[in-house]
Amino acid sequence: MAGSADEPVSSSGSTPAVVLVEPQLAENIGMVARAMLNCGLDDLRLVRPRADWPNEKAVAAASGADRVLEQARLYPSTAAATADLNLLFATTARSRAMTKWTLTPRAAASEIRRATAAGIGVGLLFGKEARGLGNDDVALSQAIIAIPLNPTFSSLNLAMAVLIVGYEWRMAANAVEAAAVATATVPGAVLQLPKETAPATAEQLQGLFEQLESELDRCGFLRIAEKRPIMVRNLRNLFGRAGLSAQEVRTLRGIISCLVAGPRRPRGGGGGA
Amino acid sequence: MAGSADEPVSSSGSTPAVVLVEPQLAENIGMVARAMLNCGLDDLRLVRPRADWPNEKAVAAASGADRVLEQARLYPSTAAATADLNLLFATTARSRAMTKWTLTPRAAASEIRRATAAGIGVGLLFGKEARGLGNDDVALSQAIIAIPLNPTFSSLNLAMAVLIVGYEWRMAANAVEAAAVATATVPGAVLQLPKETAPATAEQLQGLFEQLESELDRCGFLRIAEKRPIMVRNLRNLFGRAGLSAQEVRTLRGIISCLVAGPRRPRGGGGGA
Repeated sequence: MAGSADEPVSSSGSTPAVVLVEPQLAENIGMVARAMLNCGLDDLRLVRPRADWPNEKAVAAASGADRVLEQARLYPSTAAATADLNLLFATTARSRAMTKWTLTPRAAASEIRRATAAGIGVGLLFGKEARGLGNDDVALSQAIIAIPLNPTFSSLNLAMAVLIVGYEWRMAANAVEAAAVATATVPGAVLQLPKETAPATAEQLQGLFEQLESELDRCGFLRIAEKRPIMVRNLRNLFGRAGLSAQEVRTLRGIISCLVAGPRRPRGGGGGA
Repeated sequence: MAGSADEPVSSSGSTPAVVLVEPQLAENIGMVARAMLNCGLDDLRLVRPRADWPNEKAVAAASGADRVLEQARLYPSTAAATADLNLLFATTARSRAMTKWTLTPRAAASEIRRATAAGIGVGLLFGKEARGLGNDDVALSQAIIAIPLNPTFSSLNLAMAVLIVGYEWRMAANAVEAAAVATATVPGAVLQLPKETAPATAEQLQGLFEQLESELDRCGFLRIAEKRPIMVRNLRNLFGRAGLSAQEVRTLRGIISCLVAGPRRPRGGGGGA
């Protein structure tokens, strides 16, 4: 018994994690757990749920999927909940004023399968019932999953959205292909990294963002307070969309450090503007 | 205003009808209505719902899909609810001791699209929350839709089952093909009827079954009371599975009448044992 209680059923990377950001109703969390287990998913992560946790109403709504609820982990932020993951999908019905790869659940499912087969940790982000994901969470994600429903009545129950994405993930089981070898930055190829290259974790990306923004604050690029949030978001979106490898993140951080140090701190020869 | 209140939004045959057989909870009916409208479906039929109808809890759970609830029609039996329909799918998670064509929701979706495009009325049958459809309702159907979920946890919320079938129906919108011309009795070709042939309605099939069973009662074929229900079910299943045309039903009924009249009533020449 000892030592196994805290271990998740599936190790990170084998199945996608479902990340609920600020879910409002415990019943919905329970229904999500049920829908997840229907699809064979069990890695549930909760970011600041409004209801007390653990919660009896969630257990009742889970209709037997207690295991998923018992293993669910709580986090103070989306960044913390996704720190060990490499590839985040933001599920949304509303269109966003962001340049973002947008996939149907079906197209996303085969990408997710390819990713997890290659050891890439995948997170599926779902926002609160009333309003969906905030733009900051969307910006953290590498791509959007848009569920193509009735445009005149697209208000989808939270657990229903989880079910559709999970169902497509399950249906894609036979469509897994061997991990691809080429890198590419076109839609549909988001997960194709050279075999020897580890994709960045969300935590590594976060480190890059924080370094970048702190430097941009310092140099005055972000000095207009009203505009700062949207500028930060757009930058994160831009880099998040790129599907960076861990090595590329290190390279970018080195570039930022170097640019900051810049001409003020001569380091001998070498090029540079 | 006059004359339009009772008209369904979609005429029979343009979209599949969702038939809930003995639903237990009003909340689930509301969630079904919401899931239906998410997918662009609005023909909801209720067979002996346990809750009072109309029902405030259903309206609350529908989250704005009131229109579907307001138009929902109540029926005393599955046969009455499907009398105007030609092709019935029984949605089920349990396997049945019946020989039956079984399709995934995805395969069924393209069949449904082909059928409705050809003017064939389609009904999707869903059973009560706890136990699903009874075998008699399954036997009435031409095929089974089996949702391929986690075999170790397949207990699916009623509205979730409706959503998956409706979602696949919606996704199949681009896969509609011109109505096929060939008849066939192999799986996947269930809806292909010659253009000039009208498929039988459930009411016509019911008439055939009643005639057949009454004759079988009379001749003693169904005399063992304990065995009668299962024998009737198996017969209905057999004929239901055949995807009979209206003409074929008339032919069969004529055959039954003729067999009953048989050698006792000479009608002149002609072969026959």
